[in-house]
Amino acid sequence: MSLKLYYSPGACSFVPHALLEASGAAYEPMLVKLHKGEQKSPEYTAINPRGQVPVLVDGDEVITQILAICLYLDEKFPQCGFLPAKGVARAHALEALAWMNNTAHPTFTHVFMPGKFIGDEDGQAKVKARAIETFQGVLAELEALVAKKPGEWLSGAHFGPLDAYALTLARWGTFAAIKPAAHPTLWAHVHHVAAHPAVARVMERERLQLDVSPA
Amino acid sequence: MSLKLYYSPGACSFVPHALLEASGAAYEPMLVKLHKGEQKSPEYTAINPRGQVPVLVDGDEVITQILAICLYLDEKFPQCGFLPAKGVARAHALEALAWMNNTAHPTFTHVFMPGKFIGDEDGQAKVKARAIETFQGVLAELEALVAKKPGEWLSGAHFGPLDAYALTLARWGTFAAIKPAAHPTLWAHVHHVAAHPAVARVMERERLQLDVSPA
Repeated sequence: MSLKLYYSPGACSFVPHALLEASGAAYEPMLVKLHKGEQKSPEYTAINPRGQVPVLVDGDEVITQILAICLYLDEKFPQCGFLPAKGVARAHALEALAWMNNTAHPTFTHVFMPGKFIGDEDGQAKVKARAIETFQGVLAELEALVAKKPGEWLSGAHFGPLDAYALTLARWGTFAAIKPAAHPTLWAHVHHVAAHPAVARVMERERLQLDVSPA
Repeated sequence: MSLKLYYSPGACSFVPHALLEASGAAYEPMLVKLHKGEQKSPEYTAINPRGQVPVLVDGDEVITQILAICLYLDEKFPQCGFLPAKGVARAHALEALAWMNNTAHPTFTHVFMPGKFIGDEDGQAKVKARAIETFQGVLAELEALVAKKPGEWLSGAHFGPLDAYALTLARWGTFAAIKPAAHPTLWAHVHHVAAHPAVARVMERERLQLDVSPA
């Protein structure tokens, strides 16, 4: 068995990257340089035709999509307790994970790549400005989620995908000049997550700073 | 134990609606009239502060988000085999479900509610036109997924959320004048899904036609 994870620094691939590192399993982190367009190379699109990270390769099997990868890792490493095992606790964790993935994350895509949604520059500036406003609301919802978390970590007793995703989303906010001070409860949790030894190692490998607010 | 599903006709709540009906369990379908703004009423936002459908209520527990609801129903009714039970087969089904939920679905939101993304009318028309183009690509990907499905249904041997979501997305396409003839393999599957007795009953309850293309 060989495990590989294709990731790009600071992208949402951070979420499965942190889980894999926390699992203690041997795996190969495969850097994909988005700024060099490597995700569009024939080599990479042969692995993932959508040209996106993350991709998990387990032996001969290729799995894309954060949600599918996180649930696969949760099944593969049950001793980690990345998500509650069953019932309503699991459903509530998946509810938050799905929301991060289908609402919070796509909102930020409008900040980062407004050109996906409208052609002209003036329109792109408007789409981006609106998305930054919406993203402030997203981070406020995330802060409320942190405030009512059921244990030390966002889904209870164990570090898991919600924690790594929360860090990623809060960090993205600083690209849009949404300062940590605007969401102190969220950021207290982000610092707690960043201090997890596996997360700290992944941040070092990806060379990430938490706060990249413009000065 | 009492099960309730809050749904709106033709919305993505169709997916868990069809699963619940297929489960054979007793449940109460709760109609939420979006065109009357009922999802913003104090009664409804007390249940789901985001003012969205679907919501599943199981006894005292409230679960939102299609993905979380579908996985909860899959756990609750294992005899239905809504999703493959484990391993790579399950991961690939969840990969497709996550993509429908975080890419296909939000793309259509730009067709249906461009005002969420930009204020001025000219910009909204542009966002909508671009999203219709993108959605054509989405339906082409969905058609490719149908073409390589591993069995009678999209995730294998049993009817499940991928089938109900595929029907929903293809049907939404017709609102944007993307004709069934553009994706014949996808639409052959849509008709197969619509003929499932549980799906047929839900379509009747929601009063849905498959093809709502403008004449």
